[in-house]
Amino acid sequence: MPQNKQIHLDNRPTGEAVASNFKLVITDTPALEPGQVLARHHFLSLDPYMRGRMNDAKSYAAPQALGQTMGGGTVGEVLESRNAKFAVGDKVVGIGGWQQYSVVDADQPGALRKVDTSRIPLSAYLGAVGMPGVTAWYGLVKIIEPKPGETMVVSAATGAVGSAFAALSKARGCRTVGIAGGPAKCKYAVEELGFDACIDYKLHPDAGALSKALKEACPKGIDGYFENVGGMVLDAVLTRMNAFGRIAVCGMIAGYNGAPLPLTYPALILMNRLKVQGFIVSEHMEVWPEALKELGTLVATGKLRARESIAPGIESAPEAFLGLLKGKNFGKQLVRLIE
Amino acid sequence: MPQNKQIHLDNRPTGEAVASNFKLVITDTPALEPGQVLARHHFLSLDPYMRGRMNDAKSYAAPQALGQTMGGGTVGEVLESRNAKFAVGDKVVGIGGWQQYSVVDADQPGALRKVDTSRIPLSAYLGAVGMPGVTAWYGLVKIIEPKPGETMVVSAATGAVGSAFAALSKARGCRTVGIAGGPAKCKYAVEELGFDACIDYKLHPDAGALSKALKEACPKGIDGYFENVGGMVLDAVLTRMNAFGRIAVCGMIAGYNGAPLPLTYPALILMNRLKVQGFIVSEHMEVWPEALKELGTLVATGKLRARESIAPGIESAPEAFLGLLKGKNFGKQLVRLIE
Repeated sequence: MPQNKQIHLDNRPTGEAVASNFKLVITDTPALEPGQVLARHHFLSLDPYMRGRMNDAKSYAAPQALGQTMGGGTVGEVLESRNAKFAVGDKVVGIGGWQQYSVVDADQPGALRKVDTSRIPLSAYLGAVGMPGVTAWYGLVKIIEPKPGETMVVSAATGAVGSAFAALSKARGCRTVGIAGGPAKCKYAVEELGFDACIDYKLHPDAGALSKALKEACPKGIDGYFENVGGMVLDAVLTRMNAFGRIAVCGMIAGYNGAPLPLTYPALILMNRLKVQGFIVSEHMEVWPEALKELGTLVATGKLRARESIAPGIESAPEAFLGLLKGKNFGKQLVRLIE
Repeated sequence: MPQNKQIHLDNRPTGEAVASNFKLVITDTPALEPGQVLARHHFLSLDPYMRGRMNDAKSYAAPQALGQTMGGGTVGEVLESRNAKFAVGDKVVGIGGWQQYSVVDADQPGALRKVDTSRIPLSAYLGAVGMPGVTAWYGLVKIIEPKPGETMVVSAATGAVGSAFAALSKARGCRTVGIAGGPAKCKYAVEELGFDACIDYKLHPDAGALSKALKEACPKGIDGYFENVGGMVLDAVLTRMNAFGRIAVCGMIAGYNGAPLPLTYPALILMNRLKVQGFIVSEHMEVWPEALKELGTLVATGKLRARESIAPGIESAPEAFLGLLKGKNFGKQLVRLIE
């Protein structure tokens, strides 16, 4: 059996997460029991929700256990199989965690899924055609319920969720405006991801200034907003929401690494009769087939070309993850686990 | 024609509203044109939304014009009529404003409505069987969508909206908890309005303390919250919301009289996958017949016995209104306009 490098959660952050919260551990992969599969991971997905699980606080997800391999989505191939449904060489997506290999009870629902890589690259199943893509789909289609001609805005626009959101929103005939950090991301959003406009929040020192930029980019106001960041960006967007606007709250990454950020003017929810709704995509498995079908078609036809940030080797996962929390990634953050 | 005492908005508040923003004016009532009705008002309704209209800011309602009679709901009787649908002596509900009489173009939709006072007192059409009652109904039935056995909470519990909310919530088999200011209001809420428990927010200096009191009163957490006040109360309730809870935002009176109050921990919307939705009942006229039917039955059968605070005479309207903004009223705030 191959040796397996893993990243464990060694201790919990106090305030900002740091590299010393993690620990590299090398183990042997165990022999397979009947029904099990040994998967060799090609890519690990790094996602903002993992920061919440590092805390011991009550939240929607159980905390990540100390001294255990960090959880996370993976894609790879079947290296050994004692399960009739999986053959050696099958490409698979699962929840293998921050490690090079995983032993999977492949009969458990949702544990492992074969995927077709003839028209869709394997790594896309961790992004546009995976959890982030379905996240964008659920927020847009089920919470925001866009109408053609409306204006949609998404923060963290060049990330995995934002990229998918843009393609889905444009496909529904909406003006689609992104918010991202820095000129390179904003250029990419417009030139490659199909955004009608993208605002660099780093150019705006406060919510008032960002609000003015939103007014220019959204001359008819904002009907739907997909929230990934919270804080100042949410304050600014709220001032530009049209009556009966809808806000899908998927993440508030700006407040993940320390004290919670307040919402400055909640009375706007009343004044503009807004709906603000939080959601977690893993609680809505019933939409995944429909969402993945649309997302897969968008990727296969070149209408969704999501960018990836790929960190080399499992050892690089902690630093890549800490960078993601600070917006240093540019596109879907992955870790490559094969040479 | 009788002389008519009116209260005009003389100037706009800077910060807190004060009595000198208003001005008493005496005019003659004009002669009726064809189709018009002269209504003599018995009661004027005072409502928190009027504070927003005193500002010149963009809001859902057009600002109250300076030098004009303050708008507001009224009930009374027809004194003269040049409209075939209304006879002298008919009891009517309308939007007559802060004055003793109004001349109404009675053919305009929504301008004037005849009401039956055989089983429902006339003043109730400004409260439980009027706009406040329908407000409670819409928030509970259409936004919160309660299920039997769930726990519902309402702030400003002994007000016109809160009273109706309690009767409607209990009728749906929900544990119903109020939040009000002072022991007399809390006692009344439980003994007369049917609340299962009522928390005196004045006993709790901050959101943390109020949150603990909510935990005791709501041992199974909170599934639905009807928001009338905002500020510290909303912060406290948010910490006790169950997953998939619903918050109907009807008012944020705590922030009406000055600087807006922030929401301390908006990430709870995401963590608990909440829906937070603002609404204005006048935009949902389609529900009024169904809502008024249920509310009228609750009043006629004694299941909804809403308390009234009655100020004497049009001259007392400004002070009564300023008291309402500070929670000095106890029950639906009215002004009696007849001897």
